[in-house]
Amino acid sequence: MRRIISLTTDFGQENGFVGVMKGVIWGIAPEAQIADISHEIPPQNIRLGAYALWRVVPFFPPGSVHVAVIDPGVGTHRRPIGLKIGQNYFIVPDNGLITPMLEDGEHDDLPIEIVHLNNPEYWLTDVSHTFHGRDIFAPTGAHLAHGVPLEELGEPITDPIRIPFSKPEKTDRGWLAHLTIIDVFGNLTTDLPAAAISEAKNVNFNLKGHVIPGIVKSYGHCNPGELIALVDSENYIEISVVNGNAAEKTGAQIGDPVEVVIND
Amino acid sequence: MRRIISLTTDFGQENGFVGVMKGVIWGIAPEAQIADISHEIPPQNIRLGAYALWRVVPFFPPGSVHVAVIDPGVGTHRRPIGLKIGQNYFIVPDNGLITPMLEDGEHDDLPIEIVHLNNPEYWLTDVSHTFHGRDIFAPTGAHLAHGVPLEELGEPITDPIRIPFSKPEKTDRGWLAHLTIIDVFGNLTTDLPAAAISEAKNVNFNLKGHVIPGIVKSYGHCNPGELIALVDSENYIEISVVNGNAAEKTGAQIGDPVEVVIND
Amino acid sequence: MRRIISLTTDFGQENGFVGVMKGVIWGIAPEAQIADISHEIPPQNIRLGAYALWRVVPFFPPGSVHVAVIDPGVGTHRRPIGLKIGQNYFIVPDNGLITPMLEDGEHDDLPIEIVHLNNPEYWLTDVSHTFHGRDIFAPTGAHLAHGVPLEELGEPITDPIRIPFSKPEKTDRGWLAHLTIIDVFGNLTTDLPAAAISEAKNVNFNLKGHVIPGIVKSYGHCNPGELIALVDSENYIEISVVNGNAAEKTGAQIGDPVEVVIND
Repeated sequence: MRRIISLTTDFGQENGFVGVMKGVIWGIAPEAQIADISHEIPPQNIRLGAYALWRVVPFFPPGSVHVAVIDPGVGTHRRPIGLKIGQNYFIVPDNGLITPMLEDGEHDDLPIEIVHLNNPEYWLTDVSHTFHGRDIFAPTGAHLAHGVPLEELGEPITDPIRIPFSKPEKTDRGWLAHLTIIDVFGNLTTDLPAAAISEAKNVNFNLKGHVIPGIVKSYGHCNPGELIALVDSENYIEISVVNGNAAEKTGAQIGDPVEVVIND
Repeated sequence: MRRIISLTTDFGQENGFVGVMKGVIWGIAPEAQIADISHEIPPQNIRLGAYALWRVVPFFPPGSVHVAVIDPGVGTHRRPIGLKIGQNYFIVPDNGLITPMLEDGEHDDLPIEIVHLNNPEYWLTDVSHTFHGRDIFAPTGAHLAHGVPLEELGEPITDPIRIPFSKPEKTDRGWLAHLTIIDVFGNLTTDLPAAAISEAKNVNFNLKGHVIPGIVKSYGHCNPGELIALVDSENYIEISVVNGNAAEKTGAQIGDPVEVVIND
Repeated sequence: MRRIISLTTDFGQENGFVGVMKGVIWGIAPEAQIADISHEIPPQNIRLGAYALWRVVPFFPPGSVHVAVIDPGVGTHRRPIGLKIGQNYFIVPDNGLITPMLEDGEHDDLPIEIVHLNNPEYWLTDVSHTFHGRDIFAPTGAHLAHGVPLEELGEPITDPIRIPFSKPEKTDRGWLAHLTIIDVFGNLTTDLPAAAISEAKNVNFNLKGHVIPGIVKSYGHCNPGELIALVDSENYIEISVVNGNAAEKTGAQIGDPVEVVIND
């Protein structure tokens, strides 16, 4: 059973671009359950699209088909690709969007198959030059969910495009981390896995002139308005304000450095 | 059949927090139909979340499971609770969010069961300190929709937290009502049930210096730009502007008083 | 099988107005798959609602039921109507919203049936004066999707209201087109079908002082920041900025003229 399809795009919710993909999907796989991950990825921001998808994939049932379309290269020679990484399926433009899922799969030694989605039998009959989400990605994702094997959808490839994602750097005093995601609450996620400092007894986080002492358990464990560090729901270090908005309080932006000082 | 799940949160639509809850739900209850009520509740605004849910519940089929997560206390000792009120199920943090549904159920003498959702068998295996929507509320809601009895999900309790919601006050001249909801059209809903003034023949509404004479049947019954009072779709008094935005025209905000003067 | 329902409204996503329609629909047609087209149509903007719907309808499976509610006349004598145009069903207020679908159906000589949705047996029991989306449009759409024949829902009519939509005008030098839609990327769609200039070898587009030479294949075929014209995914002429936002760059607004100069 591979009947759940997730959708991640930068299409917004105004213009019907997502709705039409669902019409296409249900025309092919009427039994599919479709979950919207996000359609508010900032336009053409491949990295933020990749992060949004990467955080949700582990919580979907095995066999789910994740269709993600952040696609500035639509209509050029940019390839559409399909992947099976472990038990998860992905339908994406070949522009680096898949990088974190692919790196995780390689890190975990999962079996990985990749195809160039170049079998037009599984596309819509007429393919536009500007909307492959509707014309290629939605129908191939639907056929995959409906039971067509991945290898039917196109020819095997081994060279998907990868783009660099920020990684924390080891320093003399601890780590140099970076902000990767700012969520709707203004919480600031970093690229530092909590595991990297789980042994440290005394740690400070320095962000834009603010010094945040230690890690607390959750938002409700400090006073409203206080700037805190905690372990986020994907086990990365996050900077937050209790009952408030850390992005507003600090003026921090994605990519900003967070100095992690271990004082043990 | 308890296969409809509604979701109400303050998670926004950007970061995939809602999408991941759907992945979790469909992993447990693949047959569930999921309706989004709102994910644009202002962050941590328990009252507005409660109002949004309260207005839609009566229109869902009996047996629906309503999962609502506005949860500033996540990761503290705040309890997750499950309720059956009449034929409707609710999965919520124990922070007052359930108050209006509970008060209505009590007012209508419906049977009410409440449990502390403390049976970890129905949670995800690893529970984070910051995202119980994904780790506790989504899976318990899914198990409930999938047929697990409420009493299996945890121990009975009788002391859910309640928070005060505004109520109209009787005055010498009529009523003192308050604005409770401002919708996307700028319509201003009050806490005054239309039934409270259904006998009145001549009534004025005073809001921020504006005097609105009488109740009209619908938006289209007056001239564009006119400030009107009418009975809203949940049978409360609402202040609106014909083809316009009453919130913008009056500068009114949630909580503002509306003096209701009966001149009979 | 008529089990897909699409929803197009100006209700926003904040207040639960869309969620409650889904609760009503699934109470009547539990098997229905519901696709949101857009709920961010600017308030009461019938034209933009019509465009959003018109662009997606051809990509939905035959037999789908399209429910669209942009309804400034709710609660007045404005009729609710149901239509079958070819194999597609529509449930809409009779205010012109259906015009482009109706004109296309007539142009293509499709069979067309229209009824006034005046059979209250298929409405909710209590009908408010302000929310027919919930009380009339959702339940009649659900009954239609669930198998009730259109003619059961009300009496036949032949005079649905039509409103004018902009059309390109032939000029001495080529065409005078107009901007019809601005999407989330800032792309500017015009009312000029690409077919109208498919024979032209040398064509310029003049928009607010910018001269755009010729038509390119897709966004990725020019340099970032460049203003380009291309054929959009519905085969109309579109003005875009490569990796940018043409609406911001030009300050153009819906309705603005685009002079199309054929130099052959």
